[in-house]
Amino acid sequence: MSKFESLSLRYGERFFILDQRQLPHEEEWLEIIKPQDMVDAISTLAVRGAPLIGVSAALTLAYFSKDKSFSIEEWEQKLRSSRPTAVNLMNALDRVLLRWKQQGVDGLVKEAEEIYKEDVRLCLQMAERGNKLINDNDGILTHCNTGGLATVGIGTALGVIRHAWESGKKIHVYVDETRPLLQGARLTSWELKKLGIPYTLICDNMAAVLMREKKIQKIFVGADRVAVNGDSANKIGTYGLSVNAKHHNIPFYIVAPSTTYDPNCLSGDKICIEERSADEVRAGKSPTDAKVWNPAFDVTPKQLITKIIFEDREW
Amino acid sequence: MSKFESLSLRYGERFFILDQRQLPHEEEWLEIIKPQDMVDAISTLAVRGAPLIGVSAALTLAYFSKDKSFSIEEWEQKLRSSRPTAVNLMNALDRVLLRWKQQGVDGLVKEAEEIYKEDVRLCLQMAERGNKLINDNDGILTHCNTGGLATVGIGTALGVIRHAWESGKKIHVYVDETRPLLQGARLTSWELKKLGIPYTLICDNMAAVLMREKKIQKIFVGADRVAVNGDSANKIGTYGLSVNAKHHNIPFYIVAPSTTYDPNCLSGDKICIEERSADEVRAGKSPTDAKVWNPAFDVTPKQLITKIIFEDREW
Repeated sequence: MSKFESLSLRYGERFFILDQRQLPHEEEWLEIIKPQDMVDAISTLAVRGAPLIGVSAALTLAYFSKDKSFSIEEWEQKLRSSRPTAVNLMNALDRVLLRWKQQGVDGLVKEAEEIYKEDVRLCLQMAERGNKLINDNDGILTHCNTGGLATVGIGTALGVIRHAWESGKKIHVYVDETRPLLQGARLTSWELKKLGIPYTLICDNMAAVLMREKKIQKIFVGADRVAVNGDSANKIGTYGLSVNAKHHNIPFYIVAPSTTYDPNCLSGDKICIEERSADEVRAGKSPTDAKVWNPAFDVTPKQLITKIIFEDREW
Repeated sequence: MSKFESLSLRYGERFFILDQRQLPHEEEWLEIIKPQDMVDAISTLAVRGAPLIGVSAALTLAYFSKDKSFSIEEWEQKLRSSRPTAVNLMNALDRVLLRWKQQGVDGLVKEAEEIYKEDVRLCLQMAERGNKLINDNDGILTHCNTGGLATVGIGTALGVIRHAWESGKKIHVYVDETRPLLQGARLTSWELKKLGIPYTLICDNMAAVLMREKKIQKIFVGADRVAVNGDSANKIGTYGLSVNAKHHNIPFYIVAPSTTYDPNCLSGDKICIEERSADEVRAGKSPTDAKVWNPAFDVTPKQLITKIIFEDREW
C-alpha cells in the first residue's frame, strides 16, 4: 500500500483527513475507520474542495476494497451522492469503478493512487501557466479556498498565487471571507499565513470598492464544474465578482484541472446547484424562523471569464 | 417636556434607547442616565442608522440641557465625534447648537423636538414618493437596515417597502445579511417579521444571482451622506450591488431625507469613510492576527443610481 501525505490528507496503513471545520483554531485529524466516515466528512464539509473530494472518495474505495464484506458498488453510490455539484467526485468514482470492472481490486487501488498523483501534478501545471499572468506588485483577489486544503497538491487558484510568490514576485492577496461558510476567512487565511504570503481579509461585499480603488489587478478563483460552453460553477459569490470585474476592467481567471470539465453538461443553466441548510446563513443571528435562500454555488457565464486555466490549455 | 415613543427610542421623563446589538433575540432597553451613555451607544452601534443617530444626539443635548453642570458645547463635540460618517448627526447638532445660541436652552429643546417630528414626517413623504415606483409582485432587494430601527419614523428605504405592503401591494423582500455587522440579518429581518412582510434572507454575495434569475425587480437602499454631485455613501456593499444592478438593468434607488445631502461635500471621493475594528470581520473565525480591511461605508457614484428619493424631490 502506497503512502501519501498532503496538507489535509494522510493515507497509508491508516487513513486520516484534516477536519477543515475546526480550522484555523484547531488542527484535528479525523481517522476514517469505516466508509461512512468519509461520506459524513464530505457531506458536512470536514473534507471540501472539488479535487480533494474526488481524491478522498477514490482513496476511500481503495482503502476498504480489500475488505471482503465491503460492497464497492454500494459505497461508490453513497460517496457519489455525498456532494452533488462536484464533478471531480463523479469523475474520480467513474474512473476507479471502470478500472475495477476491468482489473479487479488491484486495478481500483492503482487508479485511486494515480488520481492522487495526477492531482499533485495538475496543480503544478496550472500554477506554472497561471504564474505567467501575474506581475510583480499585483494585488490579487481570491474567493473561497482553492489551495492545499482543496486539493492534494498546491491548489488551483491559490496554487497559482503560491507559485507566483515562491517564484519571487511581490504580491498582495485579498481574501474574500466567503459567506456563509467562511472558507476564505478560515482556510485561505490559514494557508496564506502558513506560507508567509501577505494577505488582507475582507467581507465579500468589500471587493467591489477595492476594484474601484485599483488595489486589485487580477482575480483568480477555482471552479467546481466547467460546462461545454465554458460557463463555470464555483462557490456562491463568484458570479457577482465576475460582474464587478467586468465593470472595472479587471482580468477574471478561473483555474481548474481539466477533470472539472463536464462534457455531458452543455451550458451553465444545466448545472444542478446544491442548496444547503438555512442555518448556515442564519448563523444564530437572524430570527430563528427567517426564510433563507442558500445556494452553495453560482454559475459564471463564459463571457465574463477572461480565461479558464486548465493544466494543459488556456481557454 | 414632550414625550416621544418610536420602535427604538422612548423619550420623556426618562430616556431609553433599544439596544440594537441584542436584536433579534433580546429587546433590551438601555436608559440614558448620563450623556456619555449616548456617546457610547452611538459609537458601539447600540443606536445606529443615520437619521436615528441625529435625532438621538439632539435629544440627548435637550434632555440634559436643564442640568446646570452640563456643558452643551463639550457634549456637542463628543456626540459629533461618536460616528464620523453620518452627516445627519452633524446637521442635527448644528441645528440645536444654532438655536441654543439664538434662544438659549428652551430653543435648543424645541429644535431637538422639531427634529424628531420632522424625521417622522420626512419618512412618510419619502415612502409616498417611493411607493409609486413599486408594482404588484415586485421582488425588492434591500441592504443594511433602514426602517424603524434606523429612524424615528417608518424608515427610509424600508419605509418605502413597508408603505408599499401596507397599501396592498404583494411584494417579496430579499434581505442582504450585510456583513460584517449583519444589520440585515438581525434588524431588517426582525422588522419585516414584526410587520408580517414576506422576506428571504440571503448572504450579500448571493444578490447577483437573484438579479440574473429575475427575482429582483428593484433595489432600495438608504444613504448616510449624499454629495453635491449625487454620489452617495451608504453601508459597505452598496457600491458592488449598484454595479450588479447596472449590469442586470435593475433600477437602483437611494431613499434618504434631504438632511442627508451635504452641500459642503462636492463629490463622493471627498467623503471620509470610517474604518472599523478588524475583529468585526474576523468574528472569531479567521486567524486571530489576520490583517483586515473593514470600511463601514462605500460610495456609489450618481451614474449608477437610477434615482435618489428625497422627501421633497426625486433626483
